Amino acid sequence: MKEIRFSARRRRKEVLNRLERLGYKLYQQMERGEFPAIDMPSRSTDNIYYSPEYRQYVLGEKKVRRSAGNIRHLRPFTQLIWAAYFAHELTANQKTSTLRDVYYSAQAYGISFKDQPESNDIITDVETVIGFSREDFNIFPEESSAIFGDLTIEYTIPNYEGKRLNLTSHPDGVMIGPALTSAEFIETSADKVIAIEKGGLFTRFIEERVHEKFNALLVYLRGQAPRSTRYFIRRLNQELGLPVYIFSDADPWGMHIAMVIISGSANAAHLRELTTPDAKWSGVWASDIISYKLPSDKLTDLDIKRLHELKRDPRYKDKLWQREINIFMKIKRKCELEAFSRYGLTHIVDKYLPERLKQLED
Amino acid sequence: MKEIRFSARRRRKEVLNRLERLGYKLYQQMERGEFPAIDMPSRSTDNIYYSPEYRQYVLGEKKVRRSAGNIRHLRPFTQLIWAAYFAHELTANQKTSTLRDVYYSAQAYGISFKDQPESNDIITDVETVIGFSREDFNIFPEESSAIFGDLTIEYTIPNYEGKRLNLTSHPDGVMIGPALTSAEFIETSADKVIAIEKGGLFTRFIEERVHEKFNALLVYLRGQAPRSTRYFIRRLNQELGLPVYIFSDADPWGMHIAMVIISGSANAAHLRELTTPDAKWSGVWASDIISYKLPSDKLTDLDIKRLHELKRDPRYKDKLWQREINIFMKIKRKCELEAFSRYGLTHIVDKYLPERLKQLED
Repeated sequence: MKEIRFSARRRRKEVLNRLERLGYKLYQQMERGEFPAIDMPSRSTDNIYYSPEYRQYVLGEKKVRRSAGNIRHLRPFTQLIWAAYFAHELTANQKTSTLRDVYYSAQAYGISFKDQPESNDIITDVETVIGFSREDFNIFPEESSAIFGDLTIEYTIPNYEGKRLNLTSHPDGVMIGPALTSAEFIETSADKVIAIEKGGLFTRFIEERVHEKFNALLVYLRGQAPRSTRYFIRRLNQELGLPVYIFSDADPWGMHIAMVIISGSANAAHLRELTTPDAKWSGVWASDIISYKLPSDKLTDLDIKRLHELKRDPRYKDKLWQREINIFMKIKRKCELEAFSRYGLTHIVDKYLPERLKQLED
Repeated sequence: MKEIRFSARRRRKEVLNRLERLGYKLYQQMERGEFPAIDMPSRSTDNIYYSPEYRQYVLGEKKVRRSAGNIRHLRPFTQLIWAAYFAHELTANQKTSTLRDVYYSAQAYGISFKDQPESNDIITDVETVIGFSREDFNIFPEESSAIFGDLTIEYTIPNYEGKRLNLTSHPDGVMIGPALTSAEFIETSADKVIAIEKGGLFTRFIEERVHEKFNALLVYLRGQAPRSTRYFIRRLNQELGLPVYIFSDADPWGMHIAMVIISGSANAAHLRELTTPDAKWSGVWASDIISYKLPSDKLTDLDIKRLHELKRDPRYKDKLWQREINIFMKIKRKCELEAFSRYGLTHIVDKYLPERLKQLED
């Protein structure tokens, strides 16, 4: 059992702190007789770079200023201040919301957004200004994925504060929603995380007791993982020191599911806390189609176009990725995780999984 | 607290029984020197009727026969027998699978399906022959929705057999997967079920303690509810005797989410156990857009086309549905559940929900 340091509660305090400091700064500016203004890094594409150091996209040095003294800024400036206020309200009262909800809630305060993309954009501004992701100020996506395995957590939300749950308590998997995302990690006997794209395989892994046989926490990604799940995987990696292995379909889209967990997306270049740079794309590789003689389908034109894009993408520069992209292009085949069932339902657990984990641990 | 009769275990036994009887019949035919054959109701569109009695689509009297004595039947007949065998294996060993998995698993037995639609169709044949849905023989969808509230269940799956869980144990909601679907209901203090289309609202309802204030089990549908969730809602209604209230967006697609829970789909005309005829579509109604002065959007051409289809659909013949379809067509507006946030985050819980429940209970 590992002992784990507390962090989720401290995180919430820091978010409240930064929002309050933002408000305080605006007051100071006004008290000095200045128009209040906010400086933040520009998120325009000419200010997004791939950082080999962070192994993710980051924002460059270019700044933008929103000032109440500029009539063209007045609308987005007001929207931004309201959004920061609303984020503070949610976080302070420990209520959660969604992007859709924020759009409608604005109307309750007489703040107008012409459509939801406009309000989404302002929420991204708040993320950029305070340097935390929207999940940290309680704006969650609709989607949720799940986890299963021996990890005991302690809730920090109202009515559940201090209550604990072991994540083997429900064998369909425990949903990764606001309550779990904000929970403290108490103890675990696991020594790795295995993340899986498909729900069917996640259930199979639980049934075959992969969590026990491989001492693992199992995460169900539900396709492209929601941001809160990416953040949760990062926490498992950073706070618990667990290596992360990602399994997805053998096609460019499956590869990218793994890559976004590892290195994030250009859209989140203003955030550092959604990536797990040391997570490992563990399969299904193009080369597995050959070596495991898996049933496969022909790549479509769209698949091939996507492979060409990935080949040039700076996140894909490492040897493994380039090698597998080349094999995909050569064999022009793809396959799914479920293809292992061709050799029986438990083949993937009995043979493929131990072989691959051994190979990656070496 | 209500005491609840056991049923999930008995159900599993009945499924195994019917599959074994099917096999026994085939053996008998062969021992008599006959070509083995299976008779089942036809699922062609000319044999699908709306039944006012069952309040769902049902199959008519037309039968089809698959016989090993007919060379054109040999392929689907063999596929059907294999699928029934595989269903029996899964159910007997309490292993779960998905439609995708079945397609690949067939290859392990030397059974060929030209594509997944072909294997899906054969699984539907097995449903038709034995009169149980594929979830009953452990073939589950990838999607899963969630439930939250005071209901204690007892698992019937291996390794969890006899263990109990109260469904308030995880405040993000408890996933409705194979383990929960097959669990026995032990006790509950709830007197109703409130089913909600959107995840954001489900979380809001938990935060605002709707389960306590309204003595309810809360179900998150995740859009169009997966079949296993529809089946689970039916169980809550039939085994626990709880009335079911469904809340979805005010547009033809939201209406249909409610309708499919209530009266099912034509695709499942061969099954009786996926519907909850007494469940109530509780909002958001077209008339609510007017009476609650909700922010709304213009109906698209596609929305209007869909409304015309629903107007003619036999499932929509009742007064409430026809009235609301007419209002939609008149005001040409739609709105989402989140639109209530226009009056503050808790307005939907403080005002709308109690008013609507009172109205429907009267």
